Amino acid sequence: MEQGLSLLTLGVPDLAEARRFYVEGLGWQPTLDLPEVVFLQVAPGVLLSLFDAVSLADDAQVPAAAAGLTSSFSLAHLVASPEDVAEVIATAEAAGATVVKPAQRAFWGGTHGYFADPAGFLWEVAHNPGLSVAADGTVTIAEVDAG
Amino acid sequence: MEQGLSLLTLGVPDLAEARRFYVEGLGWQPTLDLPEVVFLQVAPGVLLSLFDAVSLADDAQVPAAAAGLTSSFSLAHLVASPEDVAEVIATAEAAGATVVKPAQRAFWGGTHGYFADPAGFLWEVAHNPGLSVAADGTVTIAEVDAG
Repeated sequence: MEQGLSLLTLGVPDLAEARRFYVEGLGWQPTLDLPEVVFLQVAPGVLLSLFDAVSLADDAQVPAAAAGLTSSFSLAHLVASPEDVAEVIATAEAAGATVVKPAQRAFWGGTHGYFADPAGFLWEVAHNPGLSVAADGTVTIAEVDAG
Repeated sequence: MEQGLSLLTLGVPDLAEARRFYVEGLGWQPTLDLPEVVFLQVAPGVLLSLFDAVSLADDAQVPAAAAGLTSSFSLAHLVASPEDVAEVIATAEAAGATVVKPAQRAFWGGTHGYFADPAGFLWEVAHNPGLSVAADGTVTIAEVDAG
């Protein structure tokens, strides 16, 4: 697994409130602003995403209630091909991680899975054909046809 | 507050275990590996730091037990001068954040403070004279004389 972070997702209890704070309050510019998720670039090649906490728990297949969290988060590591997803998750498992969601098609059209590091922090491993990073680190993200 | 993230800190219950996973297991190279904290660069200009969860709660002046977390995390936004710390925290407060720890000297020699976004996610605002980012995004971090 290469040393890298691509996306940091905040699972928030109230997405409208989070959007008001980051976009209207702080004046940060979204890379992509959809009804269910907001992506904000926060470093070269790195996006902060605002997502509903329950949706994040559902997506990672972790029980939101059992985690005892009203808010949660995940880190993401993007890979170059759909096949790399399972391979990176296997590498993490061999290093001591727990597989939370095996590699599979994601609802948004790409391929992904999740593992938890030994402390329980969630890492999503994903191939997203709609996301690209320019030479200067600018991220472009578009909706993928999930058909 | 400029749109940016510089550091993501994982507050882990067992730092030795976290080091084993990221450094030995995944083979990631530390930018700085100290007994109490490990910094790993994960994007241009962005560090992931592994820190003891209780130490993180103490540093942010949040009660670890009350938060109901065995693990926690914080995001960091670095600024160019010590004076900018209070200014950025005030901007965040005006946008709807809660001030958790006002701007003050940090134990590691710089200046910092913390705010919580509306969902409760902790942001550290810091001026770190020991940290610099090269044109290519490579981060150098050194211990600061806290004298």
